[in-house]
Amino acid sequence: MDLGLDGAALTAHLVDIGSVSGEEGPLADAIESALRPLPHLTVHRDGNVIVARTTLGRPERVILAGHLDTVPIAGNLPSRAEGSRLYGCGTTDMKSGVAVQLRLAGSLTSPARDVTYVFYDCEEVAAERNGLLRLSRSSPELLAGDFAVLMEPSSGEIEAGCQGTLRAEIAAAGRRAHTARSWMGRNAIHEAGDILGVLRGYVAREPEVEGLRYHEGLNAVGIRGGVAGNVVPDECVVTVNYRFAPDRDAAQAEDFVRSLFAAWPVTVLDVAEGARPGLAHPAAAAFVAAIGATPRAKLGWTDVARFAALGVPAVNYGPGISEIAHTPDEYVETAAIAACESRLRDWLGSSG
Amino acid sequence: MDLGLDGAALTAHLVDIGSVSGEEGPLADAIESALRPLPHLTVHRDGNVIVARTTLGRPERVILAGHLDTVPIAGNLPSRAEGSRLYGCGTTDMKSGVAVQLRLAGSLTSPARDVTYVFYDCEEVAAERNGLLRLSRSSPELLAGDFAVLMEPSSGEIEAGCQGTLRAEIAAAGRRAHTARSWMGRNAIHEAGDILGVLRGYVAREPEVEGLRYHEGLNAVGIRGGVAGNVVPDECVVTVNYRFAPDRDAAQAEDFVRSLFAAWPVTVLDVAEGARPGLAHPAAAAFVAAIGATPRAKLGWTDVARFAALGVPAVNYGPGISEIAHTPDEYVETAAIAACESRLRDWLGSSG
Repeated sequence: MDLGLDGAALTAHLVDIGSVSGEEGPLADAIESALRPLPHLTVHRDGNVIVARTTLGRPERVILAGHLDTVPIAGNLPSRAEGSRLYGCGTTDMKSGVAVQLRLAGSLTSPARDVTYVFYDCEEVAAERNGLLRLSRSSPELLAGDFAVLMEPSSGEIEAGCQGTLRAEIAAAGRRAHTARSWMGRNAIHEAGDILGVLRGYVAREPEVEGLRYHEGLNAVGIRGGVAGNVVPDECVVTVNYRFAPDRDAAQAEDFVRSLFAAWPVTVLDVAEGARPGLAHPAAAAFVAAIGATPRAKLGWTDVARFAALGVPAVNYGPGISEIAHTPDEYVETAAIAACESRLRDWLGSSG
Repeated sequence: MDLGLDGAALTAHLVDIGSVSGEEGPLADAIESALRPLPHLTVHRDGNVIVARTTLGRPERVILAGHLDTVPIAGNLPSRAEGSRLYGCGTTDMKSGVAVQLRLAGSLTSPARDVTYVFYDCEEVAAERNGLLRLSRSSPELLAGDFAVLMEPSSGEIEAGCQGTLRAEIAAAGRRAHTARSWMGRNAIHEAGDILGVLRGYVAREPEVEGLRYHEGLNAVGIRGGVAGNVVPDECVVTVNYRFAPDRDAAQAEDFVRSLFAAWPVTVLDVAEGARPGLAHPAAAAFVAAIGATPRAKLGWTDVARFAALGVPAVNYGPGISEIAHTPDEYVETAAIAACESRLRDWLGSSG
């Protein structure tokens, strides 16, 4: 792998090494081979996670992190240049970001801030397989730092913090009866109409957190009920997903859901904390100044929350376009790759 | 099999020949062996359906029909007498009725009305396996008659006609979106709240049909929706069951459901016509007079509708207790068996 290729050409090269989740081995090998010989970097490998660090003793350490995996290929390999765009699986999410990481890692031999470059696997699949989560448990010291940039597609905008997510089941109860004598029973599905009524009456909070506007949401994401075609059902379960702004923690989110549905049994299935923007840190402020964009709130949950859990403020910032991630026609504007690299280079500085 | 046993003893004998749906062979064999030698009966067998008929050239022909199968055994075999009751699988539903049929078939050598005794299989399972349905298609002439009595458990009451049943799916539509930006979509499960609202606002008709009061019902019997835990769902389907009085036919029932849910696509899954009481026929009137009970409307769907479809008015009348049918503790009052037999014997008369 030639780290001297320009950002677009390097992105194309990375894209053409297909790396659907679970199959990141060849790409991780190629990256390790490219970085291992560089004298200004210390390289660690753990499975298909690669961490490369400068160790210059700078007063600040920042992290640039990106995942190597993509969603399944959808007839969109190999990559294909067309006008100002590069098409192909992973162009936008997020091998263009990985290309920027690699270009910086290869060329910034003496940055003004120490840099940790993290390349990890299995971001697009179930959390328990996530390489960043694994590393945060096995070797958290490798992820230590003052500020982290996750190179997720953000259209060159700074997306700060992220909202949390909670899923819970709300159960309506009834009493079974034969439908020919339905008045002998109580229909739990009909009863669930009140649960849906609460959902429909919900008004989303849009709190400002450290100057950024978040936007919550509460939705039914599943409903099930029914015993047989001739039976008044005695149970109907609504699964809801609450997306909560980072001014609430997991316990507050759970309290909110339980109080909203106080009339029914509530079972919390899972919850993931959000992350506050954390832009007050000097390294973050310098980052915002260097990028020259106005930060906006990240509404979806992302791995920035894993850094937040380690006490490291983090943002999403990358050349891809989140709206077209995971689509067969995903692409990246090649000019955005160069712009992203240039701004990060300005921020990281160089004394070498 | 000794048809000279009293009704309770014969019921116990029938119960002890287990005959869960699909396993009626040995019981059908025993019945065929008992009836085949009797000179006053002409016996047909079709699979595990047995039809035994008098052919005396009487001006009226009536039918006594009963099913041989039971629901699965639930630790309730062999039968067990306790005080005035006989316990065991099928005692109430409906081997006590079959015992009455057999006692009458064996002893009424010259009834005032020609009698067709029908014993059939697979009533407790899916309609396509029902022996009476099969016979009504393959040999409808064997089911011809002026009036039919289905010996289903009715606590010695006359249950006339039956309600029809229709199942349909009502589909609410939405637009998918990520739950982190749920306002970009439209939640089909929330939308289904309006469908449940219609169900909750429904007021049941209780029409009088030929002097009997029916009671309709409209219930959700199933609901499903949901794509993934982080997706605003674009579809939610409610399955409803409409039980309709026999003053409405299938087309009217369908029109009613479609007009009630006019705001949504409605897919009719299946519909079974009900049956009018048909008590005006002279044979039916004589039956009611002989039994000495006031007919009441049958709310559930039963095989009387199969006779109605053949143009034969039919009622449920049997010694069992419908409320305890299909329970492990089902029983029959032995006095009810004798009473049922005695009344039917009065009605069928004897000129021999």
